[in-house]
Amino acid sequence: MESAYSKLWLDYKPLDIPFAGKVAVRCLKGVSRECAAVSELITSLSALLPQAELTFGADSAAVIIELDVAEYLSLEEYVITADERGAFISGGSETGLLYGVFAYVRELITEQGFTRLSKRVRPALPLRMLDHWDNADGSIERGYSGSSFFFKNNELIVSDRTVHYARLLASVGINAAAINNVNVRGAAVRLITKDYYRKLDMLSELLGRWGIKLYLCIDFSAPISVGGLTTADPLDPRVQSWWRDKAAELFSEVRNLGGFLVKADSEGQPGPYAYGRSHADGANMLARAIKPYGGRVIWRCFVYNCSQDWRDLRTDRACAGCNTFAPLDGRFDDNVSLQVKNGPMDFQIREPVHPLFGVMKNTSLTAEFQIAQEYTGQQLHVCCLIPMIKEILAFRTCNGRERDTVLDMIDGAAAVSNTGDSFCWTGSELAAANLYGFGRICSEPGLSAEDILEEWITLTFGRSEEVKEKLLYILLGSREAYENYTVPLGMGWMCKPNHHYGPDPWGYEFDRWGTYNRADRDAVGVDRGPEGTGYSELYYPPLSDMYSSPDTCPDELLLFFCRVPYTHILKSGKTLIQHIYDSHFEGYAQAEEFFRLWRSLDGSIDERTYRNGCDRFKEQLRCAAEWRDIVNAFFHRLSGIPDEQGRKLY
Amino acid sequence: MESAYSKLWLDYKPLDIPFAGKVAVRCLKGVSRECAAVSELITSLSALLPQAELTFGADSAAVIIELDVAEYLSLEEYVITADERGAFISGGSETGLLYGVFAYVRELITEQGFTRLSKRVRPALPLRMLDHWDNADGSIERGYSGSSFFFKNNELIVSDRTVHYARLLASVGINAAAINNVNVRGAAVRLITKDYYRKLDMLSELLGRWGIKLYLCIDFSAPISVGGLTTADPLDPRVQSWWRDKAAELFSEVRNLGGFLVKADSEGQPGPYAYGRSHADGANMLARAIKPYGGRVIWRCFVYNCSQDWRDLRTDRACAGCNTFAPLDGRFDDNVSLQVKNGPMDFQIREPVHPLFGVMKNTSLTAEFQIAQEYTGQQLHVCCLIPMIKEILAFRTCNGRERDTVLDMIDGAAAVSNTGDSFCWTGSELAAANLYGFGRICSEPGLSAEDILEEWITLTFGRSEEVKEKLLYILLGSREAYENYTVPLGMGWMCKPNHHYGPDPWGYEFDRWGTYNRADRDAVGVDRGPEGTGYSELYYPPLSDMYSSPDTCPDELLLFFCRVPYTHILKSGKTLIQHIYDSHFEGYAQAEEFFRLWRSLDGSIDERTYRNGCDRFKEQLRCAAEWRDIVNAFFHRLSGIPDEQGRKLY
Repeated sequence: MESAYSKLWLDYKPLDIPFAGKVAVRCLKGVSRECAAVSELITSLSALLPQAELTFGADSAAVIIELDVAEYLSLEEYVITADERGAFISGGSETGLLYGVFAYVRELITEQGFTRLSKRVRPALPLRMLDHWDNADGSIERGYSGSSFFFKNNELIVSDRTVHYARLLASVGINAAAINNVNVRGAAVRLITKDYYRKLDMLSELLGRWGIKLYLCIDFSAPISVGGLTTADPLDPRVQSWWRDKAAELFSEVRNLGGFLVKADSEGQPGPYAYGRSHADGANMLARAIKPYGGRVIWRCFVYNCSQDWRDLRTDRACAGCNTFAPLDGRFDDNVSLQVKNGPMDFQIREPVHPLFGVMKNTSLTAEFQIAQEYTGQQLHVCCLIPMIKEILAFRTCNGRERDTVLDMIDGAAAVSNTGDSFCWTGSELAAANLYGFGRICSEPGLSAEDILEEWITLTFGRSEEVKEKLLYILLGSREAYENYTVPLGMGWMCKPNHHYGPDPWGYEFDRWGTYNRADRDAVGVDRGPEGTGYSELYYPPLSDMYSSPDTCPDELLLFFCRVPYTHILKSGKTLIQHIYDSHFEGYAQAEEFFRLWRSLDGSIDERTYRNGCDRFKEQLRCAAEWRDIVNAFFHRLSGIPDEQGRKLY
Repeated sequence: MESAYSKLWLDYKPLDIPFAGKVAVRCLKGVSRECAAVSELITSLSALLPQAELTFGADSAAVIIELDVAEYLSLEEYVITADERGAFISGGSETGLLYGVFAYVRELITEQGFTRLSKRVRPALPLRMLDHWDNADGSIERGYSGSSFFFKNNELIVSDRTVHYARLLASVGINAAAINNVNVRGAAVRLITKDYYRKLDMLSELLGRWGIKLYLCIDFSAPISVGGLTTADPLDPRVQSWWRDKAAELFSEVRNLGGFLVKADSEGQPGPYAYGRSHADGANMLARAIKPYGGRVIWRCFVYNCSQDWRDLRTDRACAGCNTFAPLDGRFDDNVSLQVKNGPMDFQIREPVHPLFGVMKNTSLTAEFQIAQEYTGQQLHVCCLIPMIKEILAFRTCNGRERDTVLDMIDGAAAVSNTGDSFCWTGSELAAANLYGFGRICSEPGLSAEDILEEWITLTFGRSEEVKEKLLYILLGSREAYENYTVPLGMGWMCKPNHHYGPDPWGYEFDRWGTYNRADRDAVGVDRGPEGTGYSELYYPPLSDMYSSPDTCPDELLLFFCRVPYTHILKSGKTLIQHIYDSHFEGYAQAEEFFRLWRSLDGSIDERTYRNGCDRFKEQLRCAAEWRDIVNAFFHRLSGIPDEQGRKLY
């Protein structure tokens, strides 16, 4: 029977070398033969070397692989020393060892044989997390890959697919997963009740075997909705006591629980504001309840007024995160981490880096990315986000620290997951690169986007140079192409409301969401400088000065920070309006080129993947033409300025 | 127990006169004591004259009312001769008599006693129909008054509410009702199977007692979906035979069935085009199947390309109805009536009259109105459509006939119903005026809007002069106000997509629905003259000439027919842009005045109605401010022209 899901990058094929000798695996101190690291190594070697004779602990063998747990390493760290006669892999724990095994197997595949290798890796970020927005009924909020494989009809599912899911995550070093939607609705409210303990425990044990902690999104008002109290006030002793009791029960029933992920006071979710309390009050109350069990609270900072009056030019949604959380810096318990979206708005194709990363110097921060392509083509358009994630992590906050990048300021990263129960997990096979890349970056942020993609391509599609070159070209160019044919220069929000797919330049302009481009016949963009909304002042100098003036603001963020006339000359030497026209024609041409390259791979990649890709590239082109023509028409109708090259505008 | 529904205009209160004598009702030839006319008369007199002694056939009485069926009258016609001693009411059938009774009772109430009256009325339009867009699951497409009272969970409901429904319709002369959505989906496909015969027969008999024929919307592909054939080709003998058999069964099982209402080849519904057949082929095939049973086919003309490319400036949805149906004039069987929407687009607050009314000289036509306020405020905004319906019926088609108005060209009118299971039937009590008025206009089109509304106000709210004057002011001004603060000068479609509530000036501009305003920084509107899409040529001269030029086109339709600069001088002497600003500020002020007047009725009308009205006027004002500010902002941003009066534009 055909499997209901592909193995993605773990679909190992035999190596090219005709190795048929004996391979001995030796488990040294602290390594149990039953642990995931050993089983993963055996599974992998069996697939890679089908002719080899695999043994445990044989004295003589052509290749000897020794596995070890070593105290001098931190828990998730590993060391590999390898050559043509075998390898010595050591981990700080069986999880570190597992990461070492995955790294070693990757090397075997990319090098196609036993070669010299010396490597010591400690995952850079302690928390490397996937946030699933799966609902208990099986739907996925902002899901573009089918339905949930965690939930169906309000039941939790633990199946062979869950095991492969855990392998996929572990293989790229992800060590935490929140399995339910941050908007906690319906039956999901009852995940923290005995209705779900048995299955949750099964799931958490399964994930734990692969080094992954289970997180649950909770309803902040659970003391009311679940507990039957009349309040969820975090300073009310009854509420505190309820959560303490709940935590005791939950952490004893669900043995590998990591903690809670919480969306509070955001887009209709309940939170501490209802009781006149701060977000520190809310987060710390929960953190204290679960602290005895090693639990952590991941507290989202996506708090803003979602009933804004579009007529109001002073209120700026971009400021909301800092306004809410900056005054609370240093006031969060040590088992709270604030999960900050990469930008101040909501996962647009281009935003400035969130100023909270610089400001919150005394608070644990988790950077939140969205590999679910909500605003970036919904997995119908190819849009590789690895370069963007790297760019954001490398951003210098200029906050006075010696090491002041976003990466330096955070101790975790989370990605809103792009997975579902589609055959290839991510709707589009190419979208799996974002899942792979997110994990790899969190573990080894020094890797370049090219490094990571080369790995992923080789693991997924084999070692064809042609396939690698063409896919690299597509993937590395895909974000620029998408940005080119969609929303110009950091402005955001020109998508259709609600479902966020396809162009609607004023779809969010006169609405309550705080998302405006303020375009008129002369100019476009929002003045977020000191004379405008003041948002630029939330950055440290020299960033604050740089962003506040069109002369110094980087072009790619110009319309986010500044209001400029269509005739404004960009650093490229082009006028703004001509840039808009050119980039839209160019973006479409790039998408055409991607499809052309993809079609040239017919026969070089598997048929199912090829056909799925063709369907998606076709849709990408259709939609890219809409974006190109509608955004250009929008600005042409407003500005009245013709295209210098005389191309057709509507 | 409180009733789940109000009686609307049939909630009779005792007359002011202290009449306590004997009233005799005499049934003369052809009148059974059990018929609806007699029971309605008794019910009404009991409520109006609670002190009176009602008898049948007593020789002497203070008041004697004689009821009669007379052959010299057409079936639905009636004659009343009345004075202070009683009345002689004669009908062409018991239905005609019923109409006479309702008319007589209306007179008793408006005159508050037995007065002299002589009246002979024959309903002007033979077919006076309500189209319910109720789905079998109980939802209502474009319903703004709760859920269906015909369907719940795929079951047909026949209840006391159904009886009152029939009384309401009969009281205003409506004689046909299609109870299910023209988009036939889900279980509704099986309405023409034995699953539903028993209940349908009950319902049709109930309606029949009140002179109302039951119509069903059918799935044109029922031979496939219900019959298991492989085709629904209207020229295929198997299909024809299937429909003949189905009709024989259906009309014998459902005894008072009127026929079918059909939406074919429209917005995804199946139709004859799938088989390369014309709409005449499709309609006539059905008509022949049901002809033996006196059945009629009402065939909708709402056929257009709903996948248009917005870039295409030549294709015009407005032309689609004529393009499809004009070549078929004279080719429809005599038991087919084409149901033509009042305008060529889709029930906008202002459209030109549909050109098919002039063109289809040899075809039975039914005019379709929409009193469900889809585009006219969704029963949250007061928008009395009676003047609009009268205006359309009085429109001269100039098609060369001696009597050439729309009213002259049609033999039926249908209204998409605004009813549901809300307490007051129509969501807003004021919206019930549209239901009342639609029926009254179809029966007596000579009545003025004021006449009809005065009747309705008196029947609903009593005889207070203050209430009457204020409600008349609100209702008669409501369409103008709504038009003022929403879409200027016939342009249409500036509403939010999908749900059609609230403003979104370019919400339909770059989409597939054929609904564009083509606004840019200099001009707005669609050139539908001979140099443009050619739509104006579908009218007869002098209309075709009049509409084709901004100099002669009536202002209220200017932007439907012409593309003009913002500086164009209207017949009012104002520039277009100033007219837009002024009308939007004025429309909002009108809505404010309506609410002020309504509030001044506190205590003069029943509390429940008053409070419901206040909630709705509040929402109307909120939404009207959005319309005013967003439409003005839209044109101000495009045109750059300030308001002459310096009012705030965004």
